[in-house]
Amino acid sequence: MPKEWNIRDAYVKNSDGIKVIDFKKSSLHILNYSTPISKRMSLAELREHLYSLPDHPDWIPYKTSYYQERWGFCLSQNQLDSLAEGSYEVLIDSSLEAGNLTFAECFIPGESSDEVLISCHICHPSICNDNLSGIALSTFLARSLQDCRLRYSYRFIFIPGTIGAITWLALNESTVGRIKHGLVVANVGDSGKMNYKKSRRGDAEIDRAVAHALKDSGAPYEITDFSPYGYDERQFCSPGFNLPMGSLTRTPWGRYPEYHTSADNLSLVQPKYLADSFKTYLSVLDILENNNRYLNQNPKCEPQLGNRGLYRTMGGNVESKDAELAMLWVLNLSDGRHSLLDVAERSKLPFPTVHAAARALEGSGLLRAMAADSRR
Amino acid sequence: MPKEWNIRDAYVKNSDGIKVIDFKKSSLHILNYSTPISKRMSLAELREHLYSLPDHPDWIPYKTSYYQERWGFCLSQNQLDSLAEGSYEVLIDSSLEAGNLTFAECFIPGESSDEVLISCHICHPSICNDNLSGIALSTFLARSLQDCRLRYSYRFIFIPGTIGAITWLALNESTVGRIKHGLVVANVGDSGKMNYKKSRRGDAEIDRAVAHALKDSGAPYEITDFSPYGYDERQFCSPGFNLPMGSLTRTPWGRYPEYHTSADNLSLVQPKYLADSFKTYLSVLDILENNNRYLNQNPKCEPQLGNRGLYRTMGGNVESKDAELAMLWVLNLSDGRHSLLDVAERSKLPFPTVHAAARALEGSGLLRAMAADSRR
Amino acid sequence: MPKEWNIRDAYVKNSDGIKVIDFKKSSLHILNYSTPISKRMSLAELREHLYSLPDHPDWIPYKTSYYQERWGFCLSQNQLDSLAEGSYEVLIDSSLEAGNLTFAECFIPGESSDEVLISCHICHPSICNDNLSGIALSTFLARSLQDCRLRYSYRFIFIPGTIGAITWLALNESTVGRIKHGLVVANVGDSGKMNYKKSRRGDAEIDRAVAHALKDSGAPYEITDFSPYGYDERQFCSPGFNLPMGSLTRTPWGRYPEYHTSADNLSLVQPKYLADSFKTYLSVLDILENNNRYLNQNPKCEPQLGNRGLYRTMGGNVESKDAELAMLWVLNLSDGRHSLLDVAERSKLPFPTVHAAARALEGSGLLRAMAADSRR
Repeated sequence: MPKEWNIRDAYVKNSDGIKVIDFKKSSLHILNYSTPISKRMSLAELREHLYSLPDHPDWIPYKTSYYQERWGFCLSQNQLDSLAEGSYEVLIDSSLEAGNLTFAECFIPGESSDEVLISCHICHPSICNDNLSGIALSTFLARSLQDCRLRYSYRFIFIPGTIGAITWLALNESTVGRIKHGLVVANVGDSGKMNYKKSRRGDAEIDRAVAHALKDSGAPYEITDFSPYGYDERQFCSPGFNLPMGSLTRTPWGRYPEYHTSADNLSLVQPKYLADSFKTYLSVLDILENNNRYLNQNPKCEPQLGNRGLYRTMGGNVESKDAELAMLWVLNLSDGRHSLLDVAERSKLPFPTVHAAARALEGSGLLRAMAADSRR
Repeated sequence: MPKEWNIRDAYVKNSDGIKVIDFKKSSLHILNYSTPISKRMSLAELREHLYSLPDHPDWIPYKTSYYQERWGFCLSQNQLDSLAEGSYEVLIDSSLEAGNLTFAECFIPGESSDEVLISCHICHPSICNDNLSGIALSTFLARSLQDCRLRYSYRFIFIPGTIGAITWLALNESTVGRIKHGLVVANVGDSGKMNYKKSRRGDAEIDRAVAHALKDSGAPYEITDFSPYGYDERQFCSPGFNLPMGSLTRTPWGRYPEYHTSADNLSLVQPKYLADSFKTYLSVLDILENNNRYLNQNPKCEPQLGNRGLYRTMGGNVESKDAELAMLWVLNLSDGRHSLLDVAERSKLPFPTVHAAARALEGSGLLRAMAADSRR
Repeated sequence: MPKEWNIRDAYVKNSDGIKVIDFKKSSLHILNYSTPISKRMSLAELREHLYSLPDHPDWIPYKTSYYQERWGFCLSQNQLDSLAEGSYEVLIDSSLEAGNLTFAECFIPGESSDEVLISCHICHPSICNDNLSGIALSTFLARSLQDCRLRYSYRFIFIPGTIGAITWLALNESTVGRIKHGLVVANVGDSGKMNYKKSRRGDAEIDRAVAHALKDSGAPYEITDFSPYGYDERQFCSPGFNLPMGSLTRTPWGRYPEYHTSADNLSLVQPKYLADSFKTYLSVLDILENNNRYLNQNPKCEPQLGNRGLYRTMGGNVESKDAELAMLWVLNLSDGRHSLLDVAERSKLPFPTVHAAARALEGSGLLRAMAADSRR
């Protein structure tokens, strides 16, 4: 565990006393975890501590040095090129001391003590897509669930990457068994298509729920297998925990040029993409919340739907036909072995259509929901 | 259950007393289940009760109204267009009364009480492909099996769609466990390729047998997954029964324009297509009848086939090579866990070739058939 | 079992006393298993006993008649065409008598009594690719293993095809259970791509090990399913033995024109192809030898690799990145249920990289190897 790092000010002044690099203008200017320094030096000496991106001369990179003591400044290549020979005054007013790891948790109780865990990392919130967007989406998601009647309890955690997840898991080791599904939220504001990285299990309910929601969205998407490299799913899916958690993002980390630079800002992140990600998350939670199993109360041959008023939802247009088909599928597969997600997958109908059909059939007594714990 | 409907006569006469629509010319002219009526009315009033197909002006549609009391006539668009203004005399001499559901059953006993069920619907036999063709194929199939030595018992049922299947299943609920395989026969006379809709189980022996027969036929074909929409497989595969029954047709219902019209007639249905369907059904039954498991009596290394006279069936041409290969495959896989269909699937050899090899090997004592009930 | 055949001399002399076919020039000139004869005859009579290849007029075919008593000579089409009318003196100084079946066995003991069986056929060693190449590769493989510390014991058998395998299996029936993996070696010297024919089991560890080694080789290759036709895998994979043995060759038998002719010689077989085959075999054995399971000693979240000196193997280039990824994968999957081959398959990393990662982690105490017998 690294020491707690705090920074109050940091700058580089040229021989005229002008701040040519100023932490107060952008927090990215400081190499994160820089040790304190106050010294005058030549440009040559200073250069050893400067980081820039020659391929993107306007962008400031984001750099860290958690486990090796260093100091440094990040700046644009243009800034770097404009530095004249001469003497520079370097100040970093930082401290590295024993401290605390700060994180936030938001718990929204549901009918069951079974939990859905939503995790986002907060270690560099001045960068927009990675991962202020994840913090924002998690926050809005928590707010939108607050007044709903929920089957699952929801836990949102806002933690620094890696050490936050490790710490949180260590603190909650005895209760992680409650986590039935989970998602790691990051990079949800850029224009790229949705990308789901499966849990280590690969066939968990969350994996199937996300795959179904993405397919039904009609928009392009990508699903990739788990790998032990990426965000905090590395910890949640370590073999001692093996939680059913994947990571649902837009463009994954490292695959867009603005990643970990000053260009990951409000030009990259757009409200419409945030909204689309939010909608996708809601559709996933809708599946988890409603993925019940039912028992057909009239399992031998088809019941007549017309005289039960279930034709109201049927008619001449395509939408009605789907509703009718969904009822037939739900009746046919409600033998106690199939969940509504099974029905949606096999029938290739959208989950909400299947769910609506189940509710209509339940309302007319043709279907009975199984006890929640029979779902496992 | 709807009332029993009988009809004796039905016509529409124009003001000159000429029958412009006459049930006696085509039974399709009457909306099936029409209530009785005898009344004079204007063309405008009559039109409310007339059904035609504007896109196919020569064809008479087939219409029914089982559960809503109505009367009506079906006619070609050309006929409809030729009706002049004026007063019309409408007569429907029908009755809707408590009655009986009539169906036929043909049972052909085999060595085992295990049954193969062949079901066809008889509710509108004046339409040719759907489903007089199915009635014809079932009848010829029953006749051809009558004098054979059979492993399975065969039951052919000729029933009205939906209500017939529901009634038959209700009457036979205690004995449907005998049904080991089944097929719903319909639309077997048109020029389309064969189409198999799998059972709800999806991997039943009947599903694999039909798939193998279709593949070996060399002709184009299509296999589709089960859906709870179509013919009486909806009832046979309802979750309370879940019988291993698929539906083997040519062009499925609703996918040819002549479906449920007067154009589904002897122009659409041709003897050669009926014969091809019949041949396909026979090849499926051949697989079911002979899909035994055998035990290799010389399982450690290959026995010498030459000195047992099994080279007679081998030689220089391709056919012989298949026969030799089939013997090696049957010997290799006859460990009690593989049926001849397993051998045919894995070796990619036709089932009849594999079956002939098994008989030759059995004849020379190299193979012994397992007891029939070891097949499950 | 055929009689033992020995041949001392064989020739055909023309009327001038000149040997026009001479066994001493090529052992292929004699139809193998020819009965003895010493007789003068016309060209017409002689022709009945001559075998040639009209499509390849320079090549001498290789022919046998194990189970039907015959005599004959093989010669090139050009030789045949040059034979003038006249009287010929035919001599075959051979014998067919009760005798012995000769084979060789080379056993290299390892830590375990579990065995890897390498089998090659020696029945016509004058033909180069089929199968002098297999004899050569087996011999060099045995020599290279001789001084290694081995987990498995290795048994190399050099046997005549078919009857040799049958005899060997009969003699070793009680101990074949020791054979955990095996390969039939043949046709390993031609320019064709590597070809692996899977064991009858299809998913044995040897099947997966070879598939992985071939994939990682970067060279083109082909994998085919087991069939009971080919080399001695026919016997090893007969249902009474069902050993986990496949056949790893270059171009399979019968698929190159020189097969079983005098053209299967040192023009066809080249050192570089033999070396490539040898390397492939070694990479397969490397997988078998090292396909352990490990237990992550720090299974809850990721251990820090940097402070354990495991960063030394990591750095800026691609190779290092693979090494780092391999460590993360090995840690993530070392839950007792995954072998290193499982890790290699899932991570798509080369087995040697995964193995090196496991050794590095084991060295730092992060991983503990499971007992060898836990691998089953």
